[in-house]
Amino acid sequence: MAFTLEDIVGRFGGEVVGDATQRVGSLAPLDQAGPQQLAFLANPKYLAQVETTRAGAVLISPPDLEKLASREGRNFIVTPNPYAYFARVAQAFIDLAAPKVQPGVHASAYVDANAKVAASAVIGPNVTVEAGAVIGENVRLDANVFIGRGTEVGEGSHLYPGVSVYHGCKLGARAIVHAGAVIGSDGFGFAPDFTGEGDARTGSWVKIPQVGGVSIGPDVEIGANTTIDRGAMADTIIETCVKIDNLVQIGHNCKIGAYTVIAGCAGIAGSTTIGRHCMIGGAVGIAGHVTLGDYVIVTAKSGVSKSLPKAGIYTSAFPAVDHADWNKSAALLRNIDKLRDRIRALEAAAAQKPQGGE
Amino acid sequence: MAFTLEDIVGRFGGEVVGDATQRVGSLAPLDQAGPQQLAFLANPKYLAQVETTRAGAVLISPPDLEKLASREGRNFIVTPNPYAYFARVAQAFIDLAAPKVQPGVHASAYVDANAKVAASAVIGPNVTVEAGAVIGENVRLDANVFIGRGTEVGEGSHLYPGVSVYHGCKLGARAIVHAGAVIGSDGFGFAPDFTGEGDARTGSWVKIPQVGGVSIGPDVEIGANTTIDRGAMADTIIETCVKIDNLVQIGHNCKIGAYTVIAGCAGIAGSTTIGRHCMIGGAVGIAGHVTLGDYVIVTAKSGVSKSLPKAGIYTSAFPAVDHADWNKSAALLRNIDKLRDRIRALEAAAAQKPQGGE
Amino acid sequence: MAFTLEDIVGRFGGEVVGDATQRVGSLAPLDQAGPQQLAFLANPKYLAQVETTRAGAVLISPPDLEKLASREGRNFIVTPNPYAYFARVAQAFIDLAAPKVQPGVHASAYVDANAKVAASAVIGPNVTVEAGAVIGENVRLDANVFIGRGTEVGEGSHLYPGVSVYHGCKLGARAIVHAGAVIGSDGFGFAPDFTGEGDARTGSWVKIPQVGGVSIGPDVEIGANTTIDRGAMADTIIETCVKIDNLVQIGHNCKIGAYTVIAGCAGIAGSTTIGRHCMIGGAVGIAGHVTLGDYVIVTAKSGVSKSLPKAGIYTSAFPAVDHADWNKSAALLRNIDKLRDRIRALEAAAAQKPQGGE
Repeated sequence: MAFTLEDIVGRFGGEVVGDATQRVGSLAPLDQAGPQQLAFLANPKYLAQVETTRAGAVLISPPDLEKLASREGRNFIVTPNPYAYFARVAQAFIDLAAPKVQPGVHASAYVDANAKVAASAVIGPNVTVEAGAVIGENVRLDANVFIGRGTEVGEGSHLYPGVSVYHGCKLGARAIVHAGAVIGSDGFGFAPDFTGEGDARTGSWVKIPQVGGVSIGPDVEIGANTTIDRGAMADTIIETCVKIDNLVQIGHNCKIGAYTVIAGCAGIAGSTTIGRHCMIGGAVGIAGHVTLGDYVIVTAKSGVSKSLPKAGIYTSAFPAVDHADWNKSAALLRNIDKLRDRIRALEAAAAQKPQGGE
Repeated sequence: MAFTLEDIVGRFGGEVVGDATQRVGSLAPLDQAGPQQLAFLANPKYLAQVETTRAGAVLISPPDLEKLASREGRNFIVTPNPYAYFARVAQAFIDLAAPKVQPGVHASAYVDANAKVAASAVIGPNVTVEAGAVIGENVRLDANVFIGRGTEVGEGSHLYPGVSVYHGCKLGARAIVHAGAVIGSDGFGFAPDFTGEGDARTGSWVKIPQVGGVSIGPDVEIGANTTIDRGAMADTIIETCVKIDNLVQIGHNCKIGAYTVIAGCAGIAGSTTIGRHCMIGGAVGIAGHVTLGDYVIVTAKSGVSKSLPKAGIYTSAFPAVDHADWNKSAALLRNIDKLRDRIRALEAAAAQKPQGGE
Repeated sequence: MAFTLEDIVGRFGGEVVGDATQRVGSLAPLDQAGPQQLAFLANPKYLAQVETTRAGAVLISPPDLEKLASREGRNFIVTPNPYAYFARVAQAFIDLAAPKVQPGVHASAYVDANAKVAASAVIGPNVTVEAGAVIGENVRLDANVFIGRGTEVGEGSHLYPGVSVYHGCKLGARAIVHAGAVIGSDGFGFAPDFTGEGDARTGSWVKIPQVGGVSIGPDVEIGANTTIDRGAMADTIIETCVKIDNLVQIGHNCKIGAYTVIAGCAGIAGSTTIGRHCMIGGAVGIAGHVTLGDYVIVTAKSGVSKSLPKAGIYTSAFPAVDHADWNKSAALLRNIDKLRDRIRALEAAAAQKPQGGE
């Protein structure tokens, strides 16, 4: 399967410079691409490779095209963002190559008589869809997916094997949820009901019912084994085009603003609001009941315990160094108040001495 | 569905002050509740809202009731712990509203002929129950739950979709286990069997068989995608009323004392003992083979590498600050020994100078 | 079931000292073992227990055997690594005691007509095996396992309940994968396609297709709910005899060198290479696009943000201390530049004073 450059710009935009009838059938890096392949230049430092590439065509930005010594015998699709363009074309090539899956409900799936499943949806083996659930057009539920009662899955969504979405949740259009993710589990809330102190303490933790849901906007991707708790009263909210990596924990009643990305192993405690266009690094921990403004970046492994209303980059992680050196520094840090006291003593002594010593 | 205040105190205790025939059918915050709703005052700073609430009744503690200027035209249920009381009543309202699930084994479930399943249990779609397993009265196993051979699930427990409990484990009564949790996976233990050094090293890691189980007391809640490993020889033990959040890892042969709560993303390495009534913050890491006493609190993101036998609050996490400022501090910390050396030099110089300079 | 010492050395090597016809049927610690049991001495500090043990035989190293005052009336299997030997024998005893599972495909499993499943394999309830998948000899796939199209599972592997392996991956022989682990989920990669700034920003994140796979060598063990992402173009690679604990995240295009062990809750971002024989502690975070050399050890809770090419032990974690003390140190660290400035001021003042003061 191969497409002319004309076909491609017809679908994805941009402008052909060169031979619009040139056909390409796959993608490859500039230095490896052949005449049937499409390459891209995202970083100007590889401009020289464009001069020598054998690619059938190159995705390039207008300013980079201008910098070329010669366009002779080469073909280009000119677009302001060649990397994003590449991603879209690559996805289209993959979709074409993927085996066609027939719509319908697998014989081993259990779909409640009161659930609503679009005819174009693909419901895989051993899937469960409970009463009142609504599965949109072109949705794909892979093996062992569980959709609780009343939960809605927006059109074009793909839930990979073993995803569990509890009752009363809502996934927007084109959601991608990777295997093992759990959406809508109970938030972690208990009322202490103890009397007495120490060894004599008796009582128990009383579960606070979690009756909110999870509300997820369109174009959200959620990583493997990530967990998003349902709200206590109101919903936990994930806005448009949020991208969440694997093994992330999002507590009850969090609100994650549109276009924010959250890297793997991050944890966000309950009732925290994160702004739009934020970037939360891997293994970051964010306390409950705080607010991060729009465009906040928290670097990997940092901990956030207070609100960060202003856009900016925030950090609290140390890079690993030689173990013995670290232990020495850590011991001095533990006693940093003694260093301060010694400085104070020196300052006090200096203040008592006559200037110049005479 | 609505209940008189008399009905409610008959079931949950406390005392009605006002009209015991008043009916309430749901719960709401003080400032939003209407005449058919029950509100609660847990924090005395909202006392003024009690004076103006339209709630049909208010859950209140005896001392807070005393502080009210007037009880005129209002109804109260008086209880020492209004928040826990609220939680219990809320749960009862939810249970009443929830669709009734018929006991029985779903047609798609696989229950071994040698497993014992109580007649009142609900076994969902695609559940597996292996030989020798014992499923107690009123247990609910949701879709895709796996119960290994010989494992016991105590009465009234609810295992959400996709929970896997390996063979030879024991869950106490009223366990709540959220989707994707894994109980009884092998502990992480290998004997090094290598010879030679560097590039010449050959051999392998030899797996240490994990033949203990996991023993879980009554009233334990376990979060989504949390993992609790089985013991190597003896059992891993989770005592009464322990509450564990999502994505927590508990290593083999740990013992978690009764009433302890563990927040999301925490990790506890093998053979560690945690006391009763402890609070382990989110993303805390605790080393193996250490002991935490009763009533130990570890704040979020901290690391524990040694035993903490005494009750208290322990911390080792920094809050994120401006990235550039942090990098400056981090660099100085890395060289804090040089600061110490400069202080020493100043002290030495000061000691050599005649006092007063004469 | 019991074996003579002769049988055991015939199978596992080593040499009998004492009565080779002695039979043992299980294992026990030195101080608890009876005459039908096999004990082992791995740590010379327990040598005295060997003198008094009632064990039918003791696994011991040649140098420790030499240290014994008397071997009188005792039996030994002499082997250079008694702990690894113990592990192997224990596994054999367990395998013998375990219920035999009949090969074959469970009636509730879905195996595509174009998948290839060895006759000796055990395919459990509600398993899915897609087209083109290859399941080797003596493989065991427990309940709810998902094997995507074209994925190969090497001989003798055991995948526990609910494991999902996406399409186009390869597991080597004797893999052990614990419940809920996900292999081959999409790497976390998006091209920003936004225009405008601040509130006026519009656009979206464009998904970068992830078309590599995951390639896993022989004798790898992967913990419960661990996630290993597929590569973007090339494969993510896990080499021979790597051991990975629970809740570990491994990003796309990582390469984990042979014999490396990774403890629970660790996270490794994309395109990072870890050498052979490394030890990555629990909850360690490693940045993307870095390289760790062979024999690198990173202690628990540390963060690695740069390459560590040299063998050694690396650390960046603090142990938790009393909360108030910690807060004091943390505040001083935040202002450590002021301490430095005060030292500088003292140094400057000292430099201006005439030496000795006269």
